Amino acid sequence: MSSAVNLREFEALARERLSPSIYDWCAGGTADEITLRENEAAWSRIRLCPRVLVDVSACNLGTTILGRSVAMPVMIAPCGKNALLHPEGERAVARAAEAAGVIQVLSTASSFSLEEVAAAAAGPRWFQLYFFRDRAATRALVERAEAAGYAALCLTVDAPSDGLRERDTRNRLRFPAGTRLGNLGHVAGADEHISELSRFDPDPSLDWASLDWLRGITRLPLVLKGILAAEEAGLAVDRGVKGVVVSNHGGRELDTAVATCEALGRVAETVSGRAEIYVDGGIRRGTDVLKALALGARAVLVGRPCLWGLAAEGEAGVRRILELLCEELRVSMALAGCPRIGEISRRLIAPGFAGWALPQSKPAAQVAGVPNG
Amino acid sequence: MSSAVNLREFEALARERLSPSIYDWCAGGTADEITLRENEAAWSRIRLCPRVLVDVSACNLGTTILGRSVAMPVMIAPCGKNALLHPEGERAVARAAEAAGVIQVLSTASSFSLEEVAAAAAGPRWFQLYFFRDRAATRALVERAEAAGYAALCLTVDAPSDGLRERDTRNRLRFPAGTRLGNLGHVAGADEHISELSRFDPDPSLDWASLDWLRGITRLPLVLKGILAAEEAGLAVDRGVKGVVVSNHGGRELDTAVATCEALGRVAETVSGRAEIYVDGGIRRGTDVLKALALGARAVLVGRPCLWGLAAEGEAGVRRILELLCEELRVSMALAGCPRIGEISRRLIAPGFAGWALPQSKPAAQVAGVPNG
Amino acid sequence: MSSAVNLREFEALARERLSPSIYDWCAGGTADEITLRENEAAWSRIRLCPRVLVDVSACNLGTTILGRSVAMPVMIAPCGKNALLHPEGERAVARAAEAAGVIQVLSTASSFSLEEVAAAAAGPRWFQLYFFRDRAATRALVERAEAAGYAALCLTVDAPSDGLRERDTRNRLRFPAGTRLGNLGHVAGADEHISELSRFDPDPSLDWASLDWLRGITRLPLVLKGILAAEEAGLAVDRGVKGVVVSNHGGRELDTAVATCEALGRVAETVSGRAEIYVDGGIRRGTDVLKALALGARAVLVGRPCLWGLAAEGEAGVRRILELLCEELRVSMALAGCPRIGEISRRLIAPGFAGWALPQSKPAAQVAGVPNG
Amino acid sequence: MSSAVNLREFEALARERLSPSIYDWCAGGTADEITLRENEAAWSRIRLCPRVLVDVSACNLGTTILGRSVAMPVMIAPCGKNALLHPEGERAVARAAEAAGVIQVLSTASSFSLEEVAAAAAGPRWFQLYFFRDRAATRALVERAEAAGYAALCLTVDAPSDGLRERDTRNRLRFPAGTRLGNLGHVAGADEHISELSRFDPDPSLDWASLDWLRGITRLPLVLKGILAAEEAGLAVDRGVKGVVVSNHGGRELDTAVATCEALGRVAETVSGRAEIYVDGGIRRGTDVLKALALGARAVLVGRPCLWGLAAEGEAGVRRILELLCEELRVSMALAGCPRIGEISRRLIAPGFAGWALPQSKPAAQVAGVPNG
Repeated sequence: MSSAVNLREFEALARERLSPSIYDWCAGGTADEITLRENEAAWSRIRLCPRVLVDVSACNLGTTILGRSVAMPVMIAPCGKNALLHPEGERAVARAAEAAGVIQVLSTASSFSLEEVAAAAAGPRWFQLYFFRDRAATRALVERAEAAGYAALCLTVDAPSDGLRERDTRNRLRFPAGTRLGNLGHVAGADEHISELSRFDPDPSLDWASLDWLRGITRLPLVLKGILAAEEAGLAVDRGVKGVVVSNHGGRELDTAVATCEALGRVAETVSGRAEIYVDGGIRRGTDVLKALALGARAVLVGRPCLWGLAAEGEAGVRRILELLCEELRVSMALAGCPRIGEISRRLIAPGFAGWALPQSKPAAQVAGVPNG
Repeated sequence: MSSAVNLREFEALARERLSPSIYDWCAGGTADEITLRENEAAWSRIRLCPRVLVDVSACNLGTTILGRSVAMPVMIAPCGKNALLHPEGERAVARAAEAAGVIQVLSTASSFSLEEVAAAAAGPRWFQLYFFRDRAATRALVERAEAAGYAALCLTVDAPSDGLRERDTRNRLRFPAGTRLGNLGHVAGADEHISELSRFDPDPSLDWASLDWLRGITRLPLVLKGILAAEEAGLAVDRGVKGVVVSNHGGRELDTAVATCEALGRVAETVSGRAEIYVDGGIRRGTDVLKALALGARAVLVGRPCLWGLAAEGEAGVRRILELLCEELRVSMALAGCPRIGEISRRLIAPGFAGWALPQSKPAAQVAGVPNG
Repeated sequence: MSSAVNLREFEALARERLSPSIYDWCAGGTADEITLRENEAAWSRIRLCPRVLVDVSACNLGTTILGRSVAMPVMIAPCGKNALLHPEGERAVARAAEAAGVIQVLSTASSFSLEEVAAAAAGPRWFQLYFFRDRAATRALVERAEAAGYAALCLTVDAPSDGLRERDTRNRLRFPAGTRLGNLGHVAGADEHISELSRFDPDPSLDWASLDWLRGITRLPLVLKGILAAEEAGLAVDRGVKGVVVSNHGGRELDTAVATCEALGRVAETVSGRAEIYVDGGIRRGTDVLKALALGARAVLVGRPCLWGLAAEGEAGVRRILELLCEELRVSMALAGCPRIGEISRRLIAPGFAGWALPQSKPAAQVAGVPNG
Repeated sequence: MSSAVNLREFEALARERLSPSIYDWCAGGTADEITLRENEAAWSRIRLCPRVLVDVSACNLGTTILGRSVAMPVMIAPCGKNALLHPEGERAVARAAEAAGVIQVLSTASSFSLEEVAAAAAGPRWFQLYFFRDRAATRALVERAEAAGYAALCLTVDAPSDGLRERDTRNRLRFPAGTRLGNLGHVAGADEHISELSRFDPDPSLDWASLDWLRGITRLPLVLKGILAAEEAGLAVDRGVKGVVVSNHGGRELDTAVATCEALGRVAETVSGRAEIYVDGGIRRGTDVLKALALGARAVLVGRPCLWGLAAEGEAGVRRILELLCEELRVSMALAGCPRIGEISRRLIAPGFAGWALPQSKPAAQVAGVPNG
């Protein structure tokens, strides 16, 4: 087993195993990667005010997500083409999720088909949906997800266009021939750039009305992924959405989009319990999960760290990631005086550190000749 | 074609082609270059709160500027002596502007005369005016601009004195003999320092009354360039000015002048639609343009990046700069849920990030012995 | 005598003498060590507004703590296993404390027993108590502390679980066989990891009711160590607690817990004189002590610097640490215009620098291509 | 003449000429030198909002200080033992001050006596007074200053004790035998540490009553140097003080004392025209002078830059420093639209940048594993 003692250390292990361009494809963000960095940094800036003299001899991390019991308030975020990182791809992730008792959110762009993944492991699973221009294709995918026992549809709404992935442009990224998109029945040929296959592109005309159509063709609860504006979370709930993922697509779409941590609090206040709120982006520590819940999230989604675990050690690596996060959350809850998930509240956030502080300046006041100590 | 994937990467290409002192002359700012750096940094600090579930299948970047249709809300800022960067100078820029469908603002200090530039390409064009001590010379220039079809006069008001260009002082900058100032009918001799020709100096007595005189001698709409104070923008509009460029001369005049991004919002609120507001300084990304419009600008002006494009690849380089910015703006509008320019509004700015935040300290609290992680 | 001119310079001296893993064990914090760094940095950020034209020819640093006179408002914080740093361990510290006229707070996990330390030097002394699962063992320890003349019980309430000491994990830290825990009658064997001895673990079920039990078995005044939330300080006082140490365990338990400096002011306002308030964490300068008192503390506790003094030079090193701090405090009081402890007040804090400012961002807005000066 | 293009560049020239310990003695501050750095940095953080369309063809920097005309609102701050930097010491400074038309404030601890300096050059001059324990000695000094034509007494009130000059301690600083203190009739012997001569120490019992005594023995106007608290500036004026220097002794006394720039605004508001306000500390640019005046100062004092000029080039160096500052101020006034000193007002400070902003955090949120761009 690896010597990594925390989630971030897995990144270095993964980097050793991956080609630079595949590593960059996973690690990178859009444009200047400001949102990518801010997603992590914003969690780190929040200060906790722990509670003491509470019996924490038995901490219980269990909660429910859309009514289903899970071992901890953590889900695995949807990420495409996992087989590029490890031959077992999303099947390895599925087994690790089952072992940890958490929900896997499978990507439309997964290497293995949703049926293959469902066959790989039991355990609750959601399907992340890209809405295609071809509605029949969209409907077919929804029906397959229902048939395979996926418990919810998680519709991505923040990617009507590709972000400016400059690392990939500089690397002239090409996926190897044979790269699969299991759900789409597609295997890339030698000269084919998988990302150029326009018939699999998300539909840029996706709008609120499309949402009604989608709700009409499925009995699965609908979760929207990619909301940052509090008003829009409210609108979504008014239209029957059961959950909202506060997300900026891991910093891969619109650069300088607000960090999810800084958007979460307002979204939670606006939705005010009428639907479940989740958040992804930059979660690397048990204290990050604690802060997300304190700010109103029901659970977090973790993406890149699971990819690093998968690339480094396959299923065992993903298990280790989830174990580390579970243990860190357990310790954090004990030290914060919250033995049960339901006791985590806004009171844990130190006064003045609520997560939507004014933006901070880069130190441009630094003057060439001024000593900086 | 170059391998540059964004505007900033063109700077390195240009630097390779230029002598260090000409590079410094373009790149430098005044004194400690605090405003120079802040102009860029301030845009980067604003956070966006994108809108979702809007049909963005057809984004339209077109807008009007003083009633004239342009392909996108971007203009080319006036910069002098472009032939020092490329033999075709402002004529190459003119052709690139025409190709991109944007307005070129020609500098009084251009290498090629305003007639030569007008002959080089069609397309809308403004004339940037320095107000000379010699009013007859000023009037003659205005009349030539009118005759050559320039659509507006853009009077620079923030440069009654030269800034402290310490790079140039250290470099003992001399322009080569033969350096032209086309509009002034001047070609520098071997021993002549072009910047010392006092008869071309802007008039330091330029005041509000001079403005009335200027309006009296021309039918062209007047735009003031170099306003930062909201009250003065209001005064200008009261005096019949049709447009205001929020500018600090690219950080080349008064150091520690407020970043244009941080001045824009107040100016726009004060003018409140009675004139058009533009902004320059530090625009390097499509998201910067989006933010400028969200804060109330009708368009932005881009200066140095066009110079880098020109130095690196001539007309093709300027075209590439404009294409990159257009494409980035298109992607940003799609990802922000604003398929048309008119839908860009203050709502896109994340709460608490309105662009005139409190100043931030350099970390002088850093103590010699304190680890910084 | 060493050449160290201030407290921080002793750390380098100590580091030379200690094995890397023992150094790390002392120096380290939990997880990303954000709270560890913030504890120091937060004091440095507060700005003083000194008073002038006060007769400071005779500065008096004396004060009382729980009614007992001490030479200055500084105590020695409890730290375990001091014999790992110097053979004389807590006995050397006791002698230095006596010489300086300050209170030593002895740790439950001390190398030497509380009786051995009491025999080593006169002078006021408190006993830091970990509440064990075995109440009889807890009671026995309390009775021994009473019998040996300890003047107060300082109950640690912020450590119901171990923090994430990643330095120790990476170092695979093992204490040498023979490592003593004097109060527990334990000497570690060759294969035994002292930190794994579960019967000495603090009781994670410690709660407010346990506090009542503890107060019932001792006549010693009770001080709680490890409070950050102002409401809980109020609750503690309502239950008869005589003192509260605003502490986050030196950044060793819950990472991103608020810096003690930033929590102190609210705690002091809430308690409002009904009990004494102390603070530890990051005190390295006389001005830090001055600020703590200005924000409402009666005294500070100093931990790591005493360990560095002990490791570097034994008793003489701890004496030197206390002398330096005393001299710095004397100078600071003179320069601040406060010749007596009682004259130190909130008025010394510069307006706008009260110690619970909004959190500051890391400069994630720094863009790859933006020069930083 | 040197190639230095601004004040800061003179520091490097001086450093080449001076022994490291004398350089450190001049350059250093107290303790962690936080105030030393903040003094400069705080000016850099203020943002200007220049005014335009004002006739600035004739900028006039002249003003009056305590009723006397000076060429610009800049004075030379008192600094001791100038002959350690250049053989002509304060006499060279006096000649440069006369040439520039500014006031020299001579230090009690000057190398040359106040009579020698008065004989060296005409021009207005103040005498900086340390109040000695021996009142007769104090009175004698005051009478000599009156007799020699000094126009004001500038009493230092912020140094009742030495700061923690750790650079000097580390350097084991000894001044060479023969070091003179001209005003005190003292020449140091070979084994004598000049700073240890206790009879020249300022009186730590100096208080408000001493001020009354001092006013009773002289007809010279009294200026207090070293006030940061607005209330105390008010008290001083109530007691007949004619001027107040907002100062923290150049960061050499109480570390983390508030930067003078951040204290100035409140002092000026409190005094509200009843006395003149001056400021020193960190002034390095013409824009710093402009900001000081905008925040309410009548003039600034410049210390270290004059020392660097003196060390580098003697009288010519000090003249060059004053010329550079004058030229920078002239340009700044022109670019700010203020052709006369009286037109500089708070309106120049950009909204939200008034100089007493909240303190800023060092970026302790930086996490080891988080990329910083």
